[in-house]
Amino acid sequence: MLEEFRKNWLSKPRLVCGIMTGTSLDGVDIAICRIEKKGDEFGIELVAKNMFPFPKAAKDALQDAIDDIVNISEVGFANTELSYLFKEYINELCKIESIDLSNIEAIGFHGQTIYHSPSQDVDEFNDSQFSYQLGCGSTLATLTGIPVVNNFRAADLALGGQGAPLAPIFDYHFLRSSTDDVIALNIGGIANITYMPKNCMKEDVIAFDTGPGNVLLDEIARMDFSKKFDRNGDIARSGNLIPELFKTLKNKDSYIKKSPPKSTGREYYSDRYIDFMINEGEGDYNEDHLNTFTRFTAWSIAKNIKQFANSEANIIVTGGGRKNTYMMELLSEYLPNANIITKSLKKMPADIKEAMVFAFLAYLTLGGIPGNMPSVTGAERETILGSISFPM
Amino acid sequence: MLEEFRKNWLSKPRLVCGIMTGTSLDGVDIAICRIEKKGDEFGIELVAKNMFPFPKAAKDALQDAIDDIVNISEVGFANTELSYLFKEYINELCKIESIDLSNIEAIGFHGQTIYHSPSQDVDEFNDSQFSYQLGCGSTLATLTGIPVVNNFRAADLALGGQGAPLAPIFDYHFLRSSTDDVIALNIGGIANITYMPKNCMKEDVIAFDTGPGNVLLDEIARMDFSKKFDRNGDIARSGNLIPELFKTLKNKDSYIKKSPPKSTGREYYSDRYIDFMINEGEGDYNEDHLNTFTRFTAWSIAKNIKQFANSEANIIVTGGGRKNTYMMELLSEYLPNANIITKSLKKMPADIKEAMVFAFLAYLTLGGIPGNMPSVTGAERETILGSISFPM
Repeated sequence: MLEEFRKNWLSKPRLVCGIMTGTSLDGVDIAICRIEKKGDEFGIELVAKNMFPFPKAAKDALQDAIDDIVNISEVGFANTELSYLFKEYINELCKIESIDLSNIEAIGFHGQTIYHSPSQDVDEFNDSQFSYQLGCGSTLATLTGIPVVNNFRAADLALGGQGAPLAPIFDYHFLRSSTDDVIALNIGGIANITYMPKNCMKEDVIAFDTGPGNVLLDEIARMDFSKKFDRNGDIARSGNLIPELFKTLKNKDSYIKKSPPKSTGREYYSDRYIDFMINEGEGDYNEDHLNTFTRFTAWSIAKNIKQFANSEANIIVTGGGRKNTYMMELLSEYLPNANIITKSLKKMPADIKEAMVFAFLAYLTLGGIPGNMPSVTGAERETILGSISFPM
Repeated sequence: MLEEFRKNWLSKPRLVCGIMTGTSLDGVDIAICRIEKKGDEFGIELVAKNMFPFPKAAKDALQDAIDDIVNISEVGFANTELSYLFKEYINELCKIESIDLSNIEAIGFHGQTIYHSPSQDVDEFNDSQFSYQLGCGSTLATLTGIPVVNNFRAADLALGGQGAPLAPIFDYHFLRSSTDDVIALNIGGIANITYMPKNCMKEDVIAFDTGPGNVLLDEIARMDFSKKFDRNGDIARSGNLIPELFKTLKNKDSYIKKSPPKSTGREYYSDRYIDFMINEGEGDYNEDHLNTFTRFTAWSIAKNIKQFANSEANIIVTGGGRKNTYMMELLSEYLPNANIITKSLKKMPADIKEAMVFAFLAYLTLGGIPGNMPSVTGAERETILGSISFPM
């Protein structure tokens, strides 16, 4: 029924806004992109970007939701409020960049994950099977007058997939190479990779969450050092490895060793995880612990790359974790033959890639093009993702 | 952009499935309707219907969500699970009625309200401003292969409306009369009316929640008589009015006396409400209390009809409350000049009307036609409602 609409949508370049709010709650990333279809390929050009901080009240409310210390009315309230916040920030970005809001033709937002737990994660720490993001598409569409696509994970989950990762189709179209094996590594709260052998086809792509990104390090920095995060990894660098704890982490972590498809979240890599691991190890919560968890995080990324991808690839690193220079050094140590690229690619700043992904996914959904990759999510087939809210 | 699609959608009769799950959690009502546009009017024909009981586990989970004794993972789980349940029941209805599922062209579902609190409800019992329904459109679309529309209240709320009531546009098109003043009265957990003077225009329609429907009576029946509800109002009939409590209810209720637009929910008419009122009155929780609350419920409906509608209209009653014969007698007592119709209208069984409403609203959304009525919700303008999930 939608053939005409979709054909028309794909017939010319579209200005699409993408919004990402990661599990680290470090802010609202907004990217405005010009996207077009060129035969079987796509073009994407970043037109404007910004990262806006969460107002303290919003951050606290979302952290409370993640920490499960809210009541139903607070969850419902945050669901609506987040859309008001997005609207405000889109307006602000348009103002800063002198973009006419009415030229934006679609918005794609991920929403704030407050729970992600696909079936394969059933283990000692949790036992449910779904993914749950806050943010209301209809509210944002009504407030902006722009069609909004959100709720990108549900369709893939309904087809038996993990509902994650979603970046691989973006990586496939915009980062694969005809001359090199490429790994896109994003280190947010959770770390994930997309591995694309040179000249690969869609079905050759391998992608999955490798395990923790900044999540455990941020938690220790927050709890034991009263810092938002360990800047540059300086605190970790000042400590020493606790061999027993490192061994415990390697042995007792039940996620790292799983074969893909796999995805994980803060439900597993929580403060309970840290307590569980440290109680099995020894010592107090200090620089040495942070050193050990930083090393473990780097090790877990490298371990997954060695085992399920390619330890000699070009590794393009995005996400806040790339700024942890100590962890990046450790990663190089574990992957001596890889070419690790932590500086931004031309036209795709490392700090905004995830927001660009959701602009691209919204573009695909409106064009009637599947956004999931069954080879990486485990879904039984490709599907168009998300729910669309059309304003008047 | 969607002109072609919408024009085509409206160009012929469509088979649409509507799903309603009320605040009483008494089951999942499903109506399959054939809907068509005829000039400025619409035709609707009920093709199949059924009410399916909630499985005990689902009902308990949803009741826990409403009662706010759940954690985030349970809310997220219920959100997804509800769509699986809908899919199962749609399949079952199609099987019973020998309808080919692939002939259904759209599904509209209301979702399970776990919190409804528009701004105007800020009062002694709650202080938030949104409406929150569970059920995932993308999941249901993927599972059935049918486009799904849901999340009908958010757009109206974003325009400053109550996000409720939503039935009036249905009532306007299918129940108004050229010869009589008509009131559509639905008595679910909450009671609401749509008042349509004879030959009225859309902007003449008045509609709002009158206050409690079965919610307080069910709560007392459940807590003090271990019954799901007071069948036929028999327990209430066996009791006597407590004049002091009746007076307290009339005086202390802050909703009944408000002028429309107004909407309310279980957030206000909760067990706290009952305790608050009875503590101010006298006696124990017994038949006399149930009698008094039943009388108060009938009185509150009549009071609103007298004050804001028309006490001499034809009143078409739908919803479970119409089976409470004692309350219906009391309503007649309070409205001696009204023509109260509690038996089903031809082709619109009283027990399935609400599900038909959501089939119609989904039809309107896909046709690009606004579904809210600003004169009743208080929104600043008409708007297309909901979010659409298209399967492959």
